[in-house]
Amino acid sequence: MTRVHVTGAAGYAAAEAIRLLHGHPHVELGVLESRSHAGEEVADHFALLRSTPYRFAPPGSVAAAVRPGDVVMTAGGDEESRSIVPALLAQGARVIDLSAAYRTDDAVAYGLCEWHRDAVAGAQLVANPGCYPTATLLALLPLASAGAPRHVVVDAKSGITGAGRKPATGSLYAEVAGDIRAYGIEQHRHQPEIERLLRSNAIDAPLVFTPHVVPLARGMLADSYAVFDGVLDEAHVRRAYQAAYAGSPFIRVVEGDRVPSVAAVTGTNDAELRVDVRGNVVRVICAIDNLGKGAAGQAVQNLNIMLGYPEETGLHARAIVAG
Amino acid sequence: MTRVHVTGAAGYAAAEAIRLLHGHPHVELGVLESRSHAGEEVADHFALLRSTPYRFAPPGSVAAAVRPGDVVMTAGGDEESRSIVPALLAQGARVIDLSAAYRTDDAVAYGLCEWHRDAVAGAQLVANPGCYPTATLLALLPLASAGAPRHVVVDAKSGITGAGRKPATGSLYAEVAGDIRAYGIEQHRHQPEIERLLRSNAIDAPLVFTPHVVPLARGMLADSYAVFDGVLDEAHVRRAYQAAYAGSPFIRVVEGDRVPSVAAVTGTNDAELRVDVRGNVVRVICAIDNLGKGAAGQAVQNLNIMLGYPEETGLHARAIVAG
Amino acid sequence: MTRVHVTGAAGYAAAEAIRLLHGHPHVELGVLESRSHAGEEVADHFALLRSTPYRFAPPGSVAAAVRPGDVVMTAGGDEESRSIVPALLAQGARVIDLSAAYRTDDAVAYGLCEWHRDAVAGAQLVANPGCYPTATLLALLPLASAGAPRHVVVDAKSGITGAGRKPATGSLYAEVAGDIRAYGIEQHRHQPEIERLLRSNAIDAPLVFTPHVVPLARGMLADSYAVFDGVLDEAHVRRAYQAAYAGSPFIRVVEGDRVPSVAAVTGTNDAELRVDVRGNVVRVICAIDNLGKGAAGQAVQNLNIMLGYPEETGLHARAIVAG
Amino acid sequence: MTRVHVTGAAGYAAAEAIRLLHGHPHVELGVLESRSHAGEEVADHFALLRSTPYRFAPPGSVAAAVRPGDVVMTAGGDEESRSIVPALLAQGARVIDLSAAYRTDDAVAYGLCEWHRDAVAGAQLVANPGCYPTATLLALLPLASAGAPRHVVVDAKSGITGAGRKPATGSLYAEVAGDIRAYGIEQHRHQPEIERLLRSNAIDAPLVFTPHVVPLARGMLADSYAVFDGVLDEAHVRRAYQAAYAGSPFIRVVEGDRVPSVAAVTGTNDAELRVDVRGNVVRVICAIDNLGKGAAGQAVQNLNIMLGYPEETGLHARAIVAG
Repeated sequence: MTRVHVTGAAGYAAAEAIRLLHGHPHVELGVLESRSHAGEEVADHFALLRSTPYRFAPPGSVAAAVRPGDVVMTAGGDEESRSIVPALLAQGARVIDLSAAYRTDDAVAYGLCEWHRDAVAGAQLVANPGCYPTATLLALLPLASAGAPRHVVVDAKSGITGAGRKPATGSLYAEVAGDIRAYGIEQHRHQPEIERLLRSNAIDAPLVFTPHVVPLARGMLADSYAVFDGVLDEAHVRRAYQAAYAGSPFIRVVEGDRVPSVAAVTGTNDAELRVDVRGNVVRVICAIDNLGKGAAGQAVQNLNIMLGYPEETGLHARAIVAG
Repeated sequence: MTRVHVTGAAGYAAAEAIRLLHGHPHVELGVLESRSHAGEEVADHFALLRSTPYRFAPPGSVAAAVRPGDVVMTAGGDEESRSIVPALLAQGARVIDLSAAYRTDDAVAYGLCEWHRDAVAGAQLVANPGCYPTATLLALLPLASAGAPRHVVVDAKSGITGAGRKPATGSLYAEVAGDIRAYGIEQHRHQPEIERLLRSNAIDAPLVFTPHVVPLARGMLADSYAVFDGVLDEAHVRRAYQAAYAGSPFIRVVEGDRVPSVAAVTGTNDAELRVDVRGNVVRVICAIDNLGKGAAGQAVQNLNIMLGYPEETGLHARAIVAG
Repeated sequence: MTRVHVTGAAGYAAAEAIRLLHGHPHVELGVLESRSHAGEEVADHFALLRSTPYRFAPPGSVAAAVRPGDVVMTAGGDEESRSIVPALLAQGARVIDLSAAYRTDDAVAYGLCEWHRDAVAGAQLVANPGCYPTATLLALLPLASAGAPRHVVVDAKSGITGAGRKPATGSLYAEVAGDIRAYGIEQHRHQPEIERLLRSNAIDAPLVFTPHVVPLARGMLADSYAVFDGVLDEAHVRRAYQAAYAGSPFIRVVEGDRVPSVAAVTGTNDAELRVDVRGNVVRVICAIDNLGKGAAGQAVQNLNIMLGYPEETGLHARAIVAG
Repeated sequence: MTRVHVTGAAGYAAAEAIRLLHGHPHVELGVLESRSHAGEEVADHFALLRSTPYRFAPPGSVAAAVRPGDVVMTAGGDEESRSIVPALLAQGARVIDLSAAYRTDDAVAYGLCEWHRDAVAGAQLVANPGCYPTATLLALLPLASAGAPRHVVVDAKSGITGAGRKPATGSLYAEVAGDIRAYGIEQHRHQPEIERLLRSNAIDAPLVFTPHVVPLARGMLADSYAVFDGVLDEAHVRRAYQAAYAGSPFIRVVEGDRVPSVAAVTGTNDAELRVDVRGNVVRVICAIDNLGKGAAGQAVQNLNIMLGYPEETGLHARAIVAG
């Protein structure tokens, strides 16, 4: 049994991580640290965790409790991660960081599991990818083998838990229900993370990235459109996707009458992908759960890779969250 | 043209009032005062008001601008109302107070329009009823003519805008979608307001009142169950309801295959009522829009009564809010 | 391994049963029979079952395949059950019937697990309770030990999957979203089932039962109000509920700041209960998932009782369905 | 007063047309014809129309009642329109056809109001545009003045009323809530209509069009991405949009912190547009109500143009529909 601690434990991604770790056969949950909810019961804060026995601990509790060999999932935001991760590493813990603090740091393993298994396996610190980068990169990286697109357009739709659990007017039920709207339209914070990974995989085309909020609690659908100079061979492109994800149990490449559906992946660590060639444009649709494969699910998958367990360990039980 | 000012203007009920007053043929909108959003454009804060030209003014602006004969709708909460209403009255303004500050004050006209037209017509200060009391009292007051119930049970379901627009975890989309839950279960703040009005209409039975949050932006359905000692005559009871609301243009008493439906009243000042006798129990179902007949719609109806206009003036255009 | 077949397999309750049986450690799924979708892949019809390998079989397939010792879950409606269950029993199968065909038949075990374990354990045919009866009876049966109520009022709110998957205008997204409405208001089909069980447990009071459709895919909240002649002792009543459900792993009796929440039980076989005394009225709120404890979850729990497995076997994994 | 008849009157677009025509100051509603609901009350079928007095008439009623000078809105589908429109025209009626039957017919006025006012004003038959073409063409047509794009990608998100009111599994609440999915992915039926209009406005680039269903009753957001060979001047492009829609009261071109929002246009005939230049890509986001500007609202706007009334006549009152 490996002890796993969580910081920023009262957020949506952390709650999903707690749910998964609670059911993980080789994990013992350690300290669940929260600045905002220290002392309160986890069961009172998340319907999903109503039958769990945990309590939030005050800031500093993880640092006080951590022992070499423990794992810490840090989910308290960029600033907190930059402040506590170095000390945790120095104490001998392994860290899976769910913030964006280390995602553009070339010295840190980037935990997009299907593409970086080896780096993750040997890392002491893993930068767990954001939900938008996960959906976009799973969709676009197999394209590199097909050639170099000239333009990439990504139109992404996200459930509101992606905005976190801190109360904000824009996340209220009455502001999200009945609406769809783009946001972060000038420059989204996740864009550099996406661009860095695309470039390091030989996809240098300029990226136009437009995120939208849709009336979903969880879930994400990203449509990526790569424009090439000529027409690609559809069968060839499809084979590239099948090959890229053969042996990856969480990735389903669908075709024929099937299209990726958020409902088919919500509450899971799965991703559904579909690629079509339309003239010079390759369209790749990817559905994930923003809290699953886009956050906590992938974090647990990274944990499994770091600890040498099969990737699916502890990831069979689906979650349900309102919406 | 009567000048109408609004305080607490950045809340949901106020926004609905602004929408209605903006389209009212005999009203000119004056100062829209907001502590939290002073200086900002109304159109930026409410999708519903996107094409209006108003700006929020800082606290004190209404007091500075008000002239005798103006009307002020005070929607900034109980504390603010207690603090500013006396001075506004002293300045010669008429006040329609959307807070609960004056609702249990016997010296103040209680603006449940269909039951208190005369008191409202001559009042300088009207306490505009809450949404739960409106739905419950419209349902139960006609019963008084049929006898005295021994027990009254009210099971009410409300859209989340009833909780206001101040960001709170419990009002987040991801907490409201997919859930139904009772709240305020020990003693709801609106219960004394309901009991006072029932008692003053000869309904003295103890009240068990249970409010619920449901996944709706706006709308309210209240099921009231009055338990009598014997079996009432259904035809007689139904006639009492038809009689009580004859001449009340916003109240529809339905029967046969029709049941009150939130969707049929959302965005309007309408109420739908249905009464059935089931043994010793009389069940009355009432649907209103919590922001319409339950707040701003009724406030405008009160305004019309105070100013001598037909009750429907300015109340024909429906609203739409997310959800 | 016990072979379990399902008829009416393309409905919502059947899909949830398939999900649970697919993950059950002692069950092998047999024939999944569907009149409407014979020959089609299950994965194409239910997002929740996207990664399962099953195919719907034509009518008659279960009868042709069944062997003594097999279990059949019949979920194709009252008429189909009456037509096929006798022959299945004659073939030596055990049957868990999810229709209403046998629920008011005194000769058949009524599978409200927490109250009828012994009868279920020895039965060849179990009538699996409806969702409304389950929520109501779990709430009211412990009251029998406290005395005889004079009136019982039940106000129930159900997700739309309770209406089945057959396309109907009233189940369309655009008709359910944004609305709450009562239905079946003259006489609901589930009322006799509830009354029979109450009466056989010494609760003879007349029942006023009002079901509502709310904007939820799955989930049910039922508020039961029992009116007594005097005031009951709250502590005594609460102890009765704790005692009634001690040793029942799926029932959580909550108190203090906690209220039953649909989100806390959706996707599970759990029920959350809360009892409060308000003068002469005892209010019991019960939350279940209409497809879980209200249908397929309870069916699997009955299966476990019939087969001698621990009740929780195969019931740990939560489901998620759109909404 | 002009008499306006409606066929296919029990669909969502027709219901919205009835709502608007009911409130139109120069219109008298004539026959509301429905194959499926003949003889039934309109108020029983649409919550939105609960307080209207109309009844559906059987097929053939419009043909029997129509007089020269009447207007008929035909909303019963392509086949019905092809079958009845020629005779209606021969009887001297003017026809606004809401089906797709005449939308790609060069001899028929295409009623995209802001671009074809003159043709509409003099037409006896107007083909009212589909919702996807409306959102896409409003977004892209002003670009023609800026140059010729090489590729056009349109990623559109639609509320489910776009699929009509005929019961279908895919339109059920439990299938739409919690999901986003693309559909019609091989070739959408609206694509030729879009391409024809783009081409006739000098935009010849190949179009990749991907429609999605999102959890909304009404509303549509379309993101159009036009890829050019070089970088366009953003200020120049923005001026082109401002110029194109100056004098068009229903079109709001927003910029700065504002983004088009479905909630800001639902229930109206408005469109919100925003254009940004991102390298070689021009992104135009357009929000409309699929039943408003995308169907019935535009039909009434066309009616006003045909009859010589100001375009906004009868289009001020917002609608609300569930969701």
